[in-house]
Amino acid sequence: MTETTGYSGGGPVLIKNPHLDSMEEDILYHLDLGTRTHNLPAMFGDIKFVCVGGSPNRMKAFAQFMHKELGLEGSGEDLADICAGTDRYAMYRTGPVLSISHGMGIPSISIMLHELIKLLHHAKCRDVTIIRIGTSGGLGIEAGSVVITDMAVDASFQPRFEQVVLGDVVVCSTDLDRDLAEELLACSKEVPDFPTLIGHTMCTYDFYEGQGRLDGALCSFSSEKKLEYLKRAHKAGVRNIEMESTAFAAMCRLCGLRAAVVCVALLDRLEGDQIRAPREVLREYQQRPQRLIAAFIRRRLGLRLPPATEGTTDRHGP
Amino acid sequence: MTETTGYSGGGPVLIKNPHLDSMEEDILYHLDLGTRTHNLPAMFGDIKFVCVGGSPNRMKAFAQFMHKELGLEGSGEDLADICAGTDRYAMYRTGPVLSISHGMGIPSISIMLHELIKLLHHAKCRDVTIIRIGTSGGLGIEAGSVVITDMAVDASFQPRFEQVVLGDVVVCSTDLDRDLAEELLACSKEVPDFPTLIGHTMCTYDFYEGQGRLDGALCSFSSEKKLEYLKRAHKAGVRNIEMESTAFAAMCRLCGLRAAVVCVALLDRLEGDQIRAPREVLREYQQRPQRLIAAFIRRRLGLRLPPATEGTTDRHGP
Repeated sequence: MTETTGYSGGGPVLIKNPHLDSMEEDILYHLDLGTRTHNLPAMFGDIKFVCVGGSPNRMKAFAQFMHKELGLEGSGEDLADICAGTDRYAMYRTGPVLSISHGMGIPSISIMLHELIKLLHHAKCRDVTIIRIGTSGGLGIEAGSVVITDMAVDASFQPRFEQVVLGDVVVCSTDLDRDLAEELLACSKEVPDFPTLIGHTMCTYDFYEGQGRLDGALCSFSSEKKLEYLKRAHKAGVRNIEMESTAFAAMCRLCGLRAAVVCVALLDRLEGDQIRAPREVLREYQQRPQRLIAAFIRRRLGLRLPPATEGTTDRHGP
Repeated sequence: MTETTGYSGGGPVLIKNPHLDSMEEDILYHLDLGTRTHNLPAMFGDIKFVCVGGSPNRMKAFAQFMHKELGLEGSGEDLADICAGTDRYAMYRTGPVLSISHGMGIPSISIMLHELIKLLHHAKCRDVTIIRIGTSGGLGIEAGSVVITDMAVDASFQPRFEQVVLGDVVVCSTDLDRDLAEELLACSKEVPDFPTLIGHTMCTYDFYEGQGRLDGALCSFSSEKKLEYLKRAHKAGVRNIEMESTAFAAMCRLCGLRAAVVCVALLDRLEGDQIRAPREVLREYQQRPQRLIAAFIRRRLGLRLPPATEGTTDRHGP
């Protein structure tokens, strides 16, 4: 069952762990699921799209939104949290779409991805596309812009994810699927009321000093040094900054998942540090990646466009 | 207002950021609080104990438990989430005790600590003690044991926290308050139905490969290499492994907060990787650090012991 070939960009989910086959039971502790307690192929075998994001409420709202966009019966208001037995993560499904929260930062998304990838493997899922829909700080772009990541880079602007394994540093590539990024950019023409662009995404371990903010409890640098760093990042092609993309890209790539990162910018970091927009504005911003991904999934499934845009754009087949 | 002197282990909360004074407003975005929208001194000025832990449900349960332990009016069942406007963190207060969740991993706890420390500073709190009550994997100790951390170490067993600031690595000390650790160990005699010990705590960025687990979606090493690493950690004095202690120790130290880490071990990692104990057993394990901290806070406040233990142990004054 365990496959160890390279990145395929489709087909089965690849588990790169020779020990897993010999386990009689696999408890996915932080998801409150397991191979003995749950029929994972029956629950998840037909999943084709996995969407992940930091906030549990936002991922619930996305599942409810997708339910309507897919034209499924009922309002979707009563979708149940599949991980209700734990408050570490929240998970919802509607049609072939799974929506899961991952908390904030690389360690938090990494725990979720290990268990999610094992779940997809145990469930014998095939041809899964996984997309992180998140929030970020923009760099030289208008607040509310949506950035599709072509390359996830670290705080030195390098496309790598460094992980410590048994005390030693291991470096992984953070390549994302370029075709998928272009496909998403094409879809953005169906949601034309906000700017969407492709750019590099910088991933940091800290929101304050690690992203050059002057407004944390600790700050050891000047406003000039901050701007000099952010401008260097911009020159290197970075258009937004968040806290999960390098680990997400590296793990999905190793496990044969076609992966994309689509984040809205809540502010332009060249203009300031604090997130000052009213909650209502921020809420609408956070819906933008969701609307783009809904257009993408509808297009992939060959569903007709929603009434509002029908007639203005050609229908796209699967 | 901004103070930049060294670790004091008492007194005011120290903000090490010269820029903060010039800000007209400080929005604590991930807590959904702010200096203009909330009267922070009125809301938090008398807080003396801050307890933090990963899970929002557990931190709510702790606040409710403390409410009873402090002998305050009402059942405590209706304590409101002070951060209800966001789902990033949850926060409850009862008497002089604040209970806050921090999610999983260093980036997640670091965001919360930046905003919590600014909150305590804006609220003009003094003589605050902060304790992380968490879960962990034990190393050569019985499942259910509670470890009071004397030193937080990284995956190379070094007492340091490395942070990337403007692209450069900065190294911070992870010293914790030794007197506080000893005081907590003394308190453990009041809750004698589980083993409590002092030891080093190893902090990692990953739960699976980063902690030498064989049961992740990815695993690049043998069972022998895993055990060799864990035994080296044990020989270096590590008694449990978790994912937040180095950042917690470093940030609290820099900001003049007396800090301790008290975690229960959910399993012995020399015996296995999967967390297999029934949910009920795990729930009782997770209450153990809470019971120890309740005894500590009661002792500090000079409250008499709960009826169950009264008469069996001397009463301790503040």
